[in-house]
Amino acid sequence: METINIGLIGTGFMGKGHAMAYQMVPKIFSPAPAFPNLVVVGDVTEDLARKGARDFGAEGWVVGWEQVVDDERVDLVDITTPNNLHKEIALASAKAGKHIYCEKPLALTGKDAKEMYEAAARAGVITMVGFNFIKNPVALLAKEMIEAGELGEIYHFRGSFHQDVLADPNAPFSWRFDRLIAGSGALADLGSHVIEFARFLVGDFERVCGLAKTFIEERPLAAGVSGYRSKATSEGSTRTVENEDSIHFLIEFKGGATGTIEASRIATGRKVFMAYEVNGSKGSLHFVHERMNELNVYLSTDPTGRQGFKTILAGPEHPYYESFWPVAGIGLGYEDMKIIEVYELLDALANNEPAYPDFKEGWKVCQVIDAVLLSVEEGRWVSVEEI
Amino acid sequence: METINIGLIGTGFMGKGHAMAYQMVPKIFSPAPAFPNLVVVGDVTEDLARKGARDFGAEGWVVGWEQVVDDERVDLVDITTPNNLHKEIALASAKAGKHIYCEKPLALTGKDAKEMYEAAARAGVITMVGFNFIKNPVALLAKEMIEAGELGEIYHFRGSFHQDVLADPNAPFSWRFDRLIAGSGALADLGSHVIEFARFLVGDFERVCGLAKTFIEERPLAAGVSGYRSKATSEGSTRTVENEDSIHFLIEFKGGATGTIEASRIATGRKVFMAYEVNGSKGSLHFVHERMNELNVYLSTDPTGRQGFKTILAGPEHPYYESFWPVAGIGLGYEDMKIIEVYELLDALANNEPAYPDFKEGWKVCQVIDAVLLSVEEGRWVSVEEI
Amino acid sequence: METINIGLIGTGFMGKGHAMAYQMVPKIFSPAPAFPNLVVVGDVTEDLARKGARDFGAEGWVVGWEQVVDDERVDLVDITTPNNLHKEIALASAKAGKHIYCEKPLALTGKDAKEMYEAAARAGVITMVGFNFIKNPVALLAKEMIEAGELGEIYHFRGSFHQDVLADPNAPFSWRFDRLIAGSGALADLGSHVIEFARFLVGDFERVCGLAKTFIEERPLAAGVSGYRSKATSEGSTRTVENEDSIHFLIEFKGGATGTIEASRIATGRKVFMAYEVNGSKGSLHFVHERMNELNVYLSTDPTGRQGFKTILAGPEHPYYESFWPVAGIGLGYEDMKIIEVYELLDALANNEPAYPDFKEGWKVCQVIDAVLLSVEEGRWVSVEEI
Amino acid sequence: METINIGLIGTGFMGKGHAMAYQMVPKIFSPAPAFPNLVVVGDVTEDLARKGARDFGAEGWVVGWEQVVDDERVDLVDITTPNNLHKEIALASAKAGKHIYCEKPLALTGKDAKEMYEAAARAGVITMVGFNFIKNPVALLAKEMIEAGELGEIYHFRGSFHQDVLADPNAPFSWRFDRLIAGSGALADLGSHVIEFARFLVGDFERVCGLAKTFIEERPLAAGVSGYRSKATSEGSTRTVENEDSIHFLIEFKGGATGTIEASRIATGRKVFMAYEVNGSKGSLHFVHERMNELNVYLSTDPTGRQGFKTILAGPEHPYYESFWPVAGIGLGYEDMKIIEVYELLDALANNEPAYPDFKEGWKVCQVIDAVLLSVEEGRWVSVEEI
Repeated sequence: METINIGLIGTGFMGKGHAMAYQMVPKIFSPAPAFPNLVVVGDVTEDLARKGARDFGAEGWVVGWEQVVDDERVDLVDITTPNNLHKEIALASAKAGKHIYCEKPLALTGKDAKEMYEAAARAGVITMVGFNFIKNPVALLAKEMIEAGELGEIYHFRGSFHQDVLADPNAPFSWRFDRLIAGSGALADLGSHVIEFARFLVGDFERVCGLAKTFIEERPLAAGVSGYRSKATSEGSTRTVENEDSIHFLIEFKGGATGTIEASRIATGRKVFMAYEVNGSKGSLHFVHERMNELNVYLSTDPTGRQGFKTILAGPEHPYYESFWPVAGIGLGYEDMKIIEVYELLDALANNEPAYPDFKEGWKVCQVIDAVLLSVEEGRWVSVEEI
Repeated sequence: METINIGLIGTGFMGKGHAMAYQMVPKIFSPAPAFPNLVVVGDVTEDLARKGARDFGAEGWVVGWEQVVDDERVDLVDITTPNNLHKEIALASAKAGKHIYCEKPLALTGKDAKEMYEAAARAGVITMVGFNFIKNPVALLAKEMIEAGELGEIYHFRGSFHQDVLADPNAPFSWRFDRLIAGSGALADLGSHVIEFARFLVGDFERVCGLAKTFIEERPLAAGVSGYRSKATSEGSTRTVENEDSIHFLIEFKGGATGTIEASRIATGRKVFMAYEVNGSKGSLHFVHERMNELNVYLSTDPTGRQGFKTILAGPEHPYYESFWPVAGIGLGYEDMKIIEVYELLDALANNEPAYPDFKEGWKVCQVIDAVLLSVEEGRWVSVEEI
Repeated sequence: METINIGLIGTGFMGKGHAMAYQMVPKIFSPAPAFPNLVVVGDVTEDLARKGARDFGAEGWVVGWEQVVDDERVDLVDITTPNNLHKEIALASAKAGKHIYCEKPLALTGKDAKEMYEAAARAGVITMVGFNFIKNPVALLAKEMIEAGELGEIYHFRGSFHQDVLADPNAPFSWRFDRLIAGSGALADLGSHVIEFARFLVGDFERVCGLAKTFIEERPLAAGVSGYRSKATSEGSTRTVENEDSIHFLIEFKGGATGTIEASRIATGRKVFMAYEVNGSKGSLHFVHERMNELNVYLSTDPTGRQGFKTILAGPEHPYYESFWPVAGIGLGYEDMKIIEVYELLDALANNEPAYPDFKEGWKVCQVIDAVLLSVEEGRWVSVEEI
Repeated sequence: METINIGLIGTGFMGKGHAMAYQMVPKIFSPAPAFPNLVVVGDVTEDLARKGARDFGAEGWVVGWEQVVDDERVDLVDITTPNNLHKEIALASAKAGKHIYCEKPLALTGKDAKEMYEAAARAGVITMVGFNFIKNPVALLAKEMIEAGELGEIYHFRGSFHQDVLADPNAPFSWRFDRLIAGSGALADLGSHVIEFARFLVGDFERVCGLAKTFIEERPLAAGVSGYRSKATSEGSTRTVENEDSIHFLIEFKGGATGTIEASRIATGRKVFMAYEVNGSKGSLHFVHERMNELNVYLSTDPTGRQGFKTILAGPEHPYYESFWPVAGIGLGYEDMKIIEVYELLDALANNEPAYPDFKEGWKVCQVIDAVLLSVEEGRWVSVEEI
């Protein structure tokens, strides 16, 4: 079995998720397509990098990202930094001929994303963007059903990603609120997942029209390193939030379907309410991540009087599940989607084939984000092709 | 107890709902504020009118509506006809000094609705529009909670009304598809309920931007009288659908909240998916009519580690419920909302006070509908005040 | 159309439910099989009887029940009194040649119930027992599916009726706690409904073994008339509860299935948690009354990877629903089951045919109750045939 | 950090679950209480053992279990074999002074389990039994709430474990159907988890009365190695099933509560329906593993009109969750419970303190199983102390 040597940049929430996936893929998939070997971890301070290396079982660590990219052993650069660093690292990695695995959203703008996609294409490296929610076995089932025509012609898509992790006005300012680092707010952070779902399940967007708002305009500064669970300082100093707390937008798909996407980071009570519904002429399906093992499906081809939404529990009949467990209902977790994502990436690397979603797809998502932002700014419908 | 003599125009689905409510109010509410006495029923044919009078326990019947309005005994004219007749009947009723109970949407256009509202106001008659969904005890609970500040500042509203009763392309053409009779499609028929909910719970709209589409462009003609359950003729002749199958629109509320409303009459699998969610700074609530006895409420003021959406079952602590049953969970039905609506109307009539929602409110809803239609037509945001 | 003249005894919660059903049947079913005419109402005090007659629209009222039975106009005696009076009234009614509609449980003991059944049979009168939950269109659907073999061989039944209306130790003593009036507690009051469901869906019981317990042994006396919503006196006097707060029992069915039934009147949080689940070799179904418009069905005959519990919403394809509303999901309420029950009773009376469930079935349920009570008393399995 | 050297016996479904947990604990918990080092894997054939070692990342492998126990490096013997081997291996391990981690049920009989518990106690080794479901953060939350008195006095427990993985009569005979290897059927395999829950949440059992049945009496032989997903041979030879497909039993707890437990391996449509409900004087809670991230809680101490079952999503406020993820609703999976279990075991080993549930608790569960089996055999109530 081939070994893929990995350099991981960023040791936060997502870095941890990736590192665990590298550990698990060879246990879950037997045999794995390639053996993922975490050779080096990079982060902004020695403390973080050292701790990451220890916790994630990496051979070494460095401060910063350049040495990771330059490390001759590294086959695959894994980018889990804040969004503003994606571009620079990816361009350097492509230049160095390294394959690239990058968290979403791919870049701060569609333009940047396109540059990254083109650089990777020129370099001939394999790329993947971490839209892990589409790797859920029931998301793959949804895709399979739509492709097989089980829902008929697609009429509507509605998707949302609502969270309340930042609904507390005392949740401190972090990089997520900083336009230069994060780009847009709820749209890039949360909405990008839903855009990917809409594209994955329904297809290309024709035009969009959005409405964004920042409800909590000032945030206290964080005491210490900022993150989801950090606390505000007691001194009362604040900083102005630079991007939107919520986004709602209308969609016309190229294929004729219509839809909406919403995302809010201040939707009190919602935790990871990453949800989608697709209505077709012959059937519908809906899903919410908070019940990630369930796909709800309605088929109007069922007999009269026996029709209803059916809760399909992820099970061994669905993509990848059997590698995890022999019976349905046991419960996959969030991490398991990352494991499937990494499996697919390793498989692509082992076979020297494209992975999905790659940088081209990552760019397409950024393009939609830009179109939505422009529509908000100018208060009008924007065609995605304008971007 | 005062008797209110009623003339009912229209004997279809809604006429029946009203007639049953007249029967039930004095049984449910003890004593009722006034005794509703159905004196005459009018419909377009003798057969329909006669059958209506018999089934609904009315004293008499007439063909057409004019004699109902002119009937000297009649105190209250009850209009359950197709939408295009609302205006003419209401204006005649106001002129005749009759109180008016009219099904939604109040009129085909905001302009017509305003004319009706002004005529009724000038005549000093009491009016009510049949937005019965807001009479659900748990809707009244939602209102009560929001008004009491239990949810804090309101951030988002999202509402929908999805049905599939017309999703079958073989469901025949009926008045609902005819722009001259019905006005708009999913927006007026279904969306109007949600607009009323948004106004009831959150308040006035500032501006809207919508997207409408007709997916099934031709419908077969009906064999016989058309209705929800009618069948197509076998001859294959069709008629072009004149209004939208679906609508999605963005909302900016005057009070600062943002939101979306969607309605579709072709959302396969959804039956009476009349749903709303309200997110506030301190709590959220959500509801779907298919589980009409449940209000789901999240309060961030609950203790840490004990927070979650709570399913409150309608019970005797909530508005009106105790008049029906002594314990929670027994199950109110659709009809019970109509009974509460009629109770409130009788109460207003007995006390010579305004009812809610009255023609002014009915007009405001039509104004929003017009703004949405204009935004669709011109592909832009429209301020409600433009209408 | 034939008129059935009715004498109603008892004007409480259930009396009201029956009276409303008499009003509604001719509105819902067009035409009704017979016209129900409430001629007289009886209750224990003049106030109650008078109020009942007024609220229910009866022609007259009497104090007590004897005059109702003796009233020559009365065709059908309707018994909604506390359980201990059922027998005496039913025997007198049978003797007087009157048809009988009696609330559940039919009697305090299987012996009494059998005497009632035999008297009615001898008199040739038509009888019905008010197990209205089985008249829910989705219960009739469940029955239809089981009879058609859609679930295959039946393996398990599990049923429950949990309430918390009496969970508060300060809920005062009422007739429900008095063994001489109510008979057993949770078993007769709540469990009887579930026993009927088990018999309706699965069939005859072979043997049972139960466990009963009274958790709240003393209750305060009521201030004024006792009922679900009455308050305790302030003086602190109490009375000892004479029957069980909860019952759990095992069942072996004659047909080979196994199961459990539970009922508790102190199950905090449960309101009308009248639930059943049936597992068969080819499918399963489950239901809970708190969502009374939904039947959940799993069919292992669905395609691999497309199996799941399906929520079937009551709709026009299911028994009786179309008489109420033209589309699914509108929401039937509790009262609508009583309306169907009364419809079936009127239909039986009009056609001079047996109704279901009749006194024979009511007796069978009482027989099971007695078997469970004996099993509790003697701490052993009891065959139903021992009773 | 101390290293714990582990010898794992059995490489099936459960062996894999344990092996993954060893990998993950040091990634999830930072720092872990001790470092789990899988030194050797044993299974019945060279192929299985070799594959296990490779997939699980173990240093070595052996055929059989004796060499694992005897391996001087091994600190902890991990037993994931069929049930009949637990005793022999555990006794040998205790004799060798090795700590023991054993899958549930601990033994085929209470007598054997007691012998194992006593041997381990005498040897002074630390033990743990793999009832991983109680390690779910929301199960620990349930425990915490009950212990803090949030539910008041406990009235009822009802638990179930329904599966349909063996509902297909063509699912071949495996060790699970063999009384000598598995002991009882649904009771030991599935019910044991629920018994542990009942003991964990409510306490000791006083007496039980059960009903068991084998519905599918003959099973085809398996083609090849038998397991959950194995297929029947085509030749038509069968073997008689030796233990029960389903069990239902009544419980009287020592503390006064009453309850039921049910388990069935042929409950069509149920996948991992491991469910419990606890009703107390002040509140109730219920859970089902198929939605393993949710605990439903009702508190009658909530304000009037604001009471309802609340769905608490597992989050960082609950035990252990924050080690996994920073926000609620992300989704723990089955494996994560095993990770917590192993964490607790390592913590106990590092601190030389007892783990929970240990062999004493494992024995208590077996004692209940024996009492239920005796009650079935003799058709009577059996006190647990008889065993």
